[in-house]
Amino acid sequence: MSLALRDPIHDYIHLDDLEAAVLQSRPMQRLRSVRQLGLANLVFPGAEHSRFSHVLGAMELAGKMYDVLAERKPDLLERDPRSPLRRNVRLAALLHDIGHAPFSHSSEELFEEGIDHEQMTEHLLALPELCDLFETDDAEVGIEPVRKILRGDGGDPSDRLLAQIVSGELDVDKMDYLLRDSHYCGVGYGNYDLGRLLETIVPLQEPETGQWGLGIEEGGVHAYEALVLARYYMFTQVYFNVTGKVLELHLNEWLKESGVRWPRDPVRFLEYDDLWVWSQMRGSDTLHARAILQRQHYVLAFETREHLSSSERNHFVTALDSVRERARGIEILVSNSAKDPHGLGASAVLVRDADGGLQPLQDVSEFIRYLTRIERFRVYTPQEDRKSVRAMLKAELEQ
Amino acid sequence: MSLALRDPIHDYIHLDDLEAAVLQSRPMQRLRSVRQLGLANLVFPGAEHSRFSHVLGAMELAGKMYDVLAERKPDLLERDPRSPLRRNVRLAALLHDIGHAPFSHSSEELFEEGIDHEQMTEHLLALPELCDLFETDDAEVGIEPVRKILRGDGGDPSDRLLAQIVSGELDVDKMDYLLRDSHYCGVGYGNYDLGRLLETIVPLQEPETGQWGLGIEEGGVHAYEALVLARYYMFTQVYFNVTGKVLELHLNEWLKESGVRWPRDPVRFLEYDDLWVWSQMRGSDTLHARAILQRQHYVLAFETREHLSSSERNHFVTALDSVRERARGIEILVSNSAKDPHGLGASAVLVRDADGGLQPLQDVSEFIRYLTRIERFRVYTPQEDRKSVRAMLKAELEQ
Amino acid sequence: MSLALRDPIHDYIHLDDLEAAVLQSRPMQRLRSVRQLGLANLVFPGAEHSRFSHVLGAMELAGKMYDVLAERKPDLLERDPRSPLRRNVRLAALLHDIGHAPFSHSSEELFEEGIDHEQMTEHLLALPELCDLFETDDAEVGIEPVRKILRGDGGDPSDRLLAQIVSGELDVDKMDYLLRDSHYCGVGYGNYDLGRLLETIVPLQEPETGQWGLGIEEGGVHAYEALVLARYYMFTQVYFNVTGKVLELHLNEWLKESGVRWPRDPVRFLEYDDLWVWSQMRGSDTLHARAILQRQHYVLAFETREHLSSSERNHFVTALDSVRERARGIEILVSNSAKDPHGLGASAVLVRDADGGLQPLQDVSEFIRYLTRIERFRVYTPQEDRKSVRAMLKAELEQ
Amino acid sequence: MSLALRDPIHDYIHLDDLEAAVLQSRPMQRLRSVRQLGLANLVFPGAEHSRFSHVLGAMELAGKMYDVLAERKPDLLERDPRSPLRRNVRLAALLHDIGHAPFSHSSEELFEEGIDHEQMTEHLLALPELCDLFETDDAEVGIEPVRKILRGDGGDPSDRLLAQIVSGELDVDKMDYLLRDSHYCGVGYGNYDLGRLLETIVPLQEPETGQWGLGIEEGGVHAYEALVLARYYMFTQVYFNVTGKVLELHLNEWLKESGVRWPRDPVRFLEYDDLWVWSQMRGSDTLHARAILQRQHYVLAFETREHLSSSERNHFVTALDSVRERARGIEILVSNSAKDPHGLGASAVLVRDADGGLQPLQDVSEFIRYLTRIERFRVYTPQEDRKSVRAMLKAELEQ
Repeated sequence: MSLALRDPIHDYIHLDDLEAAVLQSRPMQRLRSVRQLGLANLVFPGAEHSRFSHVLGAMELAGKMYDVLAERKPDLLERDPRSPLRRNVRLAALLHDIGHAPFSHSSEELFEEGIDHEQMTEHLLALPELCDLFETDDAEVGIEPVRKILRGDGGDPSDRLLAQIVSGELDVDKMDYLLRDSHYCGVGYGNYDLGRLLETIVPLQEPETGQWGLGIEEGGVHAYEALVLARYYMFTQVYFNVTGKVLELHLNEWLKESGVRWPRDPVRFLEYDDLWVWSQMRGSDTLHARAILQRQHYVLAFETREHLSSSERNHFVTALDSVRERARGIEILVSNSAKDPHGLGASAVLVRDADGGLQPLQDVSEFIRYLTRIERFRVYTPQEDRKSVRAMLKAELEQ
Repeated sequence: MSLALRDPIHDYIHLDDLEAAVLQSRPMQRLRSVRQLGLANLVFPGAEHSRFSHVLGAMELAGKMYDVLAERKPDLLERDPRSPLRRNVRLAALLHDIGHAPFSHSSEELFEEGIDHEQMTEHLLALPELCDLFETDDAEVGIEPVRKILRGDGGDPSDRLLAQIVSGELDVDKMDYLLRDSHYCGVGYGNYDLGRLLETIVPLQEPETGQWGLGIEEGGVHAYEALVLARYYMFTQVYFNVTGKVLELHLNEWLKESGVRWPRDPVRFLEYDDLWVWSQMRGSDTLHARAILQRQHYVLAFETREHLSSSERNHFVTALDSVRERARGIEILVSNSAKDPHGLGASAVLVRDADGGLQPLQDVSEFIRYLTRIERFRVYTPQEDRKSVRAMLKAELEQ
Repeated sequence: MSLALRDPIHDYIHLDDLEAAVLQSRPMQRLRSVRQLGLANLVFPGAEHSRFSHVLGAMELAGKMYDVLAERKPDLLERDPRSPLRRNVRLAALLHDIGHAPFSHSSEELFEEGIDHEQMTEHLLALPELCDLFETDDAEVGIEPVRKILRGDGGDPSDRLLAQIVSGELDVDKMDYLLRDSHYCGVGYGNYDLGRLLETIVPLQEPETGQWGLGIEEGGVHAYEALVLARYYMFTQVYFNVTGKVLELHLNEWLKESGVRWPRDPVRFLEYDDLWVWSQMRGSDTLHARAILQRQHYVLAFETREHLSSSERNHFVTALDSVRERARGIEILVSNSAKDPHGLGASAVLVRDADGGLQPLQDVSEFIRYLTRIERFRVYTPQEDRKSVRAMLKAELEQ
Repeated sequence: MSLALRDPIHDYIHLDDLEAAVLQSRPMQRLRSVRQLGLANLVFPGAEHSRFSHVLGAMELAGKMYDVLAERKPDLLERDPRSPLRRNVRLAALLHDIGHAPFSHSSEELFEEGIDHEQMTEHLLALPELCDLFETDDAEVGIEPVRKILRGDGGDPSDRLLAQIVSGELDVDKMDYLLRDSHYCGVGYGNYDLGRLLETIVPLQEPETGQWGLGIEEGGVHAYEALVLARYYMFTQVYFNVTGKVLELHLNEWLKESGVRWPRDPVRFLEYDDLWVWSQMRGSDTLHARAILQRQHYVLAFETREHLSSSERNHFVTALDSVRERARGIEILVSNSAKDPHGLGASAVLVRDADGGLQPLQDVSEFIRYLTRIERFRVYTPQEDRKSVRAMLKAELEQ
């Protein structure tokens, strides 16, 4: 039952028997009905791809990254295509997104209290229909090591490295979604030099803690920068697209007014996907449903710059509150698109120079520090209120 | 309200106000929920694209093809980006697929009696929500010329040419879907040399009838052959994929057992798309629903060669009938994948040589004639009956 | 001294120490000054690539093909990246073109008597500057096994397989040059589905002889056909381009009138490359030199169809002789572009069906047989004689 | 004699009669023997392309850019494919590089005194073999308008715009070479979103001077940034490659020791191209000739950071002088790779926001300012002196 699937990004992807069985499971198949980019296809018609193909790609890259790292540090990661460590990290990448709500990130906030998509992933992994698949003869490959990788809390020297492959500054999640999303959107950004990156990643030991983590050789610094920039451009131009954002706001309004929440119970959760939402919405005839179904969405009345300082932020929020107060009769939807283009401040991606010296990436890269946090507010209103809201807001802001 | 959309195949696609309005109409937006390749994404995970992006691409190519032809024969087709002929042919390409049933070709046979997807397109074009959009000042651009192009029954010298752009041996429909489907499936066939083809198409007058039609310069013969071959490969390897076909059979069985038909009334028809089918199917727990939803589909017990002669065909049908008789208790599903790789015998694509001489393509192309009709039967059964049905069928065939 | 080189076709290509040393040798570096497509860049401006990058690509593909075959038949080919068999076949692919004359195939006939480019390769392999590099500790990797692969005369079961990887119906030579030449020319043909092909090749044992050879699984037949067609199109449209051919004729005339021959002595041979020819030609001011240097080449007076039958061939040759006789004062250059699109008649590429049955490819592929031999004559003359020669030839042919 | 050429980057490029005649002229054909990237192909094997295909691409892009600008400001630039302004700007782009010395930028300093490649272009344009081609009936198309565009000194409102198309912050020169060089090198950087850029460029009038120039709409800022970054990466990773640089140093040393200078006389200049240099070098057996021909080049003993501050620069130069003094017997070659990643400080690329407001790009782009000047010294020595020179230099630098 081993499987070979064709993928537009990575060509053939081969799955062994266990991977193929996992792929056929309900939590995985559900991802076929969760679009990778939520409602973005209403703006970028090509962006119709699901989270299903993304996780296949992430799995493929996890294997490739493992192989590169194992070649450079074989005493830490065994150089063998059938190594349990390699199989576990591939399975972790395959399964890392099963907890995603319908429309991926668009409706993340609607989980029942005390839960988010990562916890849902944990719950789903515990379902017998998944667990039982892992009862193979190789005791070292299993649901437990996969959870350890996803939680990032293993104790072995190699555990942190495997966890970073799946989730970290330089993980297969973003390595795949950047290539995939730009391919499907048909945009010219989002690309980076995957070949060069794989050529230069290396396991490095942090001098102070002695912990192993993903690092990069000096010759790969520019390839890494380019990945960061690709992400930055996808956020500013696709994920935070002005029309995509208002549709997302309407979606959330509709879900709230309909009393929809993503259930805490994993078996019930499995019933919720994009398809379920669309079916419900079609039976509805509210303003927010029509906004999406018939594209009668609100229009942009005002947007801030793309990068607000904290005082600009406060100033805007105050002005907005004041306008909301004055314009009580008018429906206003506000999006706040915020993202750090990288997490280099907090994490420690190390760069190794030709002499073996180690430095944090942000000390080596000349301009990456100046890629400031994206933070932009957008104010949407019905077409007829656009001008007045804009005028009010501008007046408030100039005070 | 003019629009610029990004497309993975043709980069930017620009729509004028009328085109943008048409695009927003309900019959067009419905195509977002009709997958271009039916259930093929269950086999080729990347093939999640809808008919919506395909018709945008067809429109874009219609404009490009118009421009090339107008440059070569400006007295027949006016060289002007705003020419009514050009606008009409783009609109015809945009609208040519609105009559498609859910899952595109997969469930074509379930239209209510006396109707097919082309007639449904006609009915939809008559709906006020579409018609009314065309009431612009330019009287030469409108629903009537579009219908004339789609029906191919105009009387002007240029009419046949415009009709062939949208539907013919060398039309923008296949020119787009080949590139698009192979891009999304991630396969290496389906490509052909679009640049070369556009460089060599030319309006030609049939010597006998005096009618104008699409022809090709001698230097483009190999590019044309390559298009025919690309189509041949997409059919044999993607559209007629062994697993895709059985899923399609189960889908049709489920639709029939559920009493589903695509209504003749265009307004009601608009409610039927892939999403509607999926929602219904999820509420169902029949064998055929499970076959698709849980991938418990029948397996291949037998398949014929890819190209049956007519006597082989008869021999097979007789054998199959006999097996059906003998194996009454066993469920058998049979697909017959049949397609002519080209229609060159019937149509008259002319080739013009350097001296201006004209010849039908099939006389110039050395091997295209030998691309015989694809005709292949496949017999699927439940896993447990696979061996016995195969044995019975083989025995019958050897008689 | 191991090396990683970037390649537009295969991304990173890694060379081990021995391969890197071979690459730096004079016979290999000479290939930097031998254009892969002779004078084709005068017609396709992008085609400026040398044979040097082609052999790197061939080496890379040889390794990939080895890995696929080894996975399917590990008792025949050891599954190990450092296996001597694998290293030898890569080296053979790297070295297989060192005997090529300047301008690759364009001036093949000018070798001194009794020698051709394959024999020159043998002579060059015997030079100490190459031989000595192989004196490594691994006795199984060396110049002798490489020669055995290139000559195709080894006695072990695996020898024939390795030889076919480098030279045969499905060899890395054409697998690379098709992708590479079409990439550099910027044409849309020449592509085929490399991924699918590698997925379906398999070592097969000929039933009668028991010999192992390269075969293909049934699912790969169309991918193989597409490779054959890609080659066919590159020949008809690029390699046999009408202008490229006349430039080649002038080149040969100039070389002959200058008394140039490619020496039999390998050390002297190394001095001859494109650059040497260009330098000589620039010092010359003959008609044939100007034809190339100043593009004052002859023009096409007549060409036959692309596929001549043998009687058409004879008829043409007789007519041409007669014209040459009558038009003695007129310079006439004649090209005969001939190529079999495949060698399937002679060779035995086997196809394995799902039941393990074996059939020759030409019995399975429905139309590949009808890809007839390319044979086309072209007659070129000075511009002023074009019309008269054409008229004479047409008159003769109509007799 | 109009011409259609195939290009790997822009597909078909069409030339009208005059352009085709110019292309056939000696100054243009000479560019076939001037590699676009000098000796870079010795490091990136694919980079064998000449300046000839680059200028074809630049011409193609000049036409496309003209069309976009004319559509947005038709009273400034006539919307007509045959407009003299359009033809002139295409011709200027085609001719803009004819003055390049052999190996492009690698040996720029060897022009005879008082001349550089731009002045040589002027001299070549005055040659009758070029001038005379322009004596067509359309008096508005000619060598004079072309020179005006290349010099950037026209007085009409449109003149500055046309000049910026060919040479400026956002010119077709870099727009083509980035795509082309990365395509041929096979690297993953160098790409940017050409479609988006062309969608957002716009003629803008500087508020103070009233002059027209190339600007960009706010929605294109990120596309512009990406172009700047693509250039930055091509410089840091390809054009300033560590091995490429030392080969360039040896080349210059060899040219100097051989007394070679690029002549001021344009007719004599035409004889000098890469081919001429190679032929001369082969007859030479000096250390520097061998360094290139037999790859016996010096090795890197030391390199500075990629971005030196001015005090770091001075510190390094002083240290280097001191080492040169102390190590008199040792050959040292030093490269200084310096480039501003953009010229935004000096030039005035304006950005237009949705309200029509204008701002300089560097005020809008959040991080482009921090892309500091590349300036890096590298010190190369013979292999045997590497360690001692490195030690001396490090000791000096630490003082």
